[in-house]
Amino acid sequence: MADERSFLDSPEGTREEIMNATYHALCEHGYADLTIQRIGDQFEKSKSLLYHHYDGKDELLFDFLDFMLEELETSVPETIEEDAKTHLNVIFDKVFACERTEEKREFEAAMVELRAQAAHDDRYREYFTQHDRFIENHLSHVIEVGIADGDFRDVDPERVAPFIRTIIDGVRINRSTSNVGVTRSVRSELDSYIESTLCIDDENKQ
Amino acid sequence: MADERSFLDSPEGTREEIMNATYHALCEHGYADLTIQRIGDQFEKSKSLLYHHYDGKDELLFDFLDFMLEELETSVPETIEEDAKTHLNVIFDKVFACERTEEKREFEAAMVELRAQAAHDDRYREYFTQHDRFIENHLSHVIEVGIADGDFRDVDPERVAPFIRTIIDGVRINRSTSNVGVTRSVRSELDSYIESTLCIDDENKQ
Repeated sequence: MADERSFLDSPEGTREEIMNATYHALCEHGYADLTIQRIGDQFEKSKSLLYHHYDGKDELLFDFLDFMLEELETSVPETIEEDAKTHLNVIFDKVFACERTEEKREFEAAMVELRAQAAHDDRYREYFTQHDRFIENHLSHVIEVGIADGDFRDVDPERVAPFIRTIIDGVRINRSTSNVGVTRSVRSELDSYIESTLCIDDENKQ
Repeated sequence: MADERSFLDSPEGTREEIMNATYHALCEHGYADLTIQRIGDQFEKSKSLLYHHYDGKDELLFDFLDFMLEELETSVPETIEEDAKTHLNVIFDKVFACERTEEKREFEAAMVELRAQAAHDDRYREYFTQHDRFIENHLSHVIEVGIADGDFRDVDPERVAPFIRTIIDGVRINRSTSNVGVTRSVRSELDSYIESTLCIDDENKQ
């Protein structure tokens, strides 16, 4: 995470400017009402550039999703600075944040719409498969570090990581598509699960 | 579950016939490509009936979602025939079924698309909120029965039920939109969670 600059605050170069425009157009219009024209409205340079680079909104969105995956991969630290449990908590704090800006809510809702495209479009499905794998591999890695450091029990990361990722996906889809509002309860129960399944009591540590 | 007849096998009356046609059209075309015309292609009576009853495909889909919720509510037994743990397992077996027919897969994918509409359409959101509440209340009820019967520990159903529902939603969205294919791992870990969080060992039962 050496480079904390974001394409959202200060886009550098034409591609980042296009990605920035796509992000804001997605937040404003969602997937269904998105058009290249509307992405162009958020773009400071000539719209003809967009039509030149992309054959349609889906082609632009595939590039956007690839870009977001690259951003995610570079933003996630390979080394775990504190212990594995703290690291998991930092991830959960981000996912379960109850106080989200309107823009974050809109973007999460748009991502749910994009994910739904994967139900019938293999190109979207390919992206979300890569995304899920990345998240799962990262969670597995954190769990392995926790086991190696003696903080976590000797669980099977290939079972625990998909379980946690499934909970994260469930929270995201629910928050955007239903008013039941149980994010806090789910977080409490996830914390209890981590505590009882993964964590070794301090007194039992070797 | 006195009445095992389904609107899918033998629809009775015009409404069930319309619902049956909508189900099959959704499986075949998904949400995005669905039209009243295409629902009409699955309908044995005059298509003009559909145009007479519904102003557009979304109006027809709201009626379909209401109908599906009624079907779900009547299909879920109020009384728990065996013990609470067996009852939970029956639910999980349905949700996590690995051998699903092509039709079931297509319908689940279409439901993911419908859920995504709730990200920007309050009428869809209202339906999925009701749906989630029903599932959560049912899970809470099963947990309460398990506690009362001495099979389950004295956990807080208001935390455990949303947690389980979130996992079910996560599995459904993932299966339809990604190829990571971890349904079996998630089920194994869910079983372990139920065992360690809810179940009281036979030898410790009073």
